[in-house]
Amino acid sequence: MASIFSKIVQGEIPCHKIAETSDYLAFLDVRPLVRGHVLVIPKQEVSYIFDLEDNVLSGLHVFAKKIAKAIEKAIPCKRVGVAVIGLEVPHAHIHLIPLTKESDIYFSNTKLELTDDELASIATSIRTFLA
Amino acid sequence: MASIFSKIVQGEIPCHKIAETSDYLAFLDVRPLVRGHVLVIPKQEVSYIFDLEDNVLSGLHVFAKKIAKAIEKAIPCKRVGVAVIGLEVPHAHIHLIPLTKESDIYFSNTKLELTDDELASIATSIRTFLA
Repeated sequence: MASIFSKIVQGEIPCHKIAETSDYLAFLDVRPLVRGHVLVIPKQEVSYIFDLEDNVLSGLHVFAKKIAKAIEKAIPCKRVGVAVIGLEVPHAHIHLIPLTKESDIYFSNTKLELTDDELASIATSIRTFLA
Repeated sequence: MASIFSKIVQGEIPCHKIAETSDYLAFLDVRPLVRGHVLVIPKQEVSYIFDLEDNVLSGLHVFAKKIAKAIEKAIPCKRVGVAVIGLEVPHAHIHLIPLTKESDIYFSNTKLELTDDELASIATSIRTFLA
């Protein structure tokens, strides 16, 4: 069965898209730790990030860097943190999380409940800063 | 002033080394979240991971993948998680954390206090599995 992220890739489930290439997709986490929390995925459905081929893994991180640079400009923060956990959705994904303090990346924190309009506004703002 | 990690690279501060190339170094975090928590760094002293050149960023993650595969074999876990925070030490570093459950990567957790002998034993075990 296709992962929820493959369904997003295929457009069967909507997302607040940030950017897309033939191989990668970035979109807002709908249950963010902070505003501007983005997920970056390979379109290829591989569960474990370290099972990606070296060139796909490299491309994913270079794509994530571009997204992080846009997040930094759109969201007040010191820098963008990175996390890969991967025990829930069986499709490799990188969390990009704008940080003003270390605790912004604590996954034990309660997730924000943002409206669809708020998410759309954040996505628009980040997209503005993509080179 | 050289970062603490540059001092480790230069051998001025000891570490429990896992692996090294001309560009990258992996060693045990001395205040680990769990046993087998490894730091992977570029030898080049750049504070923010997303300020690394694309080829250095790619090489760092491909090197981290090799280390993660060895950690998986040495330490009982479901997979190896990844985190980059970077608000403390101004030298880019990737945390590789063997996970049996999501909360193993909660940076709010109390760090383990392991003896030097325990750390040495973990490092030896991980090195055994490096291809």
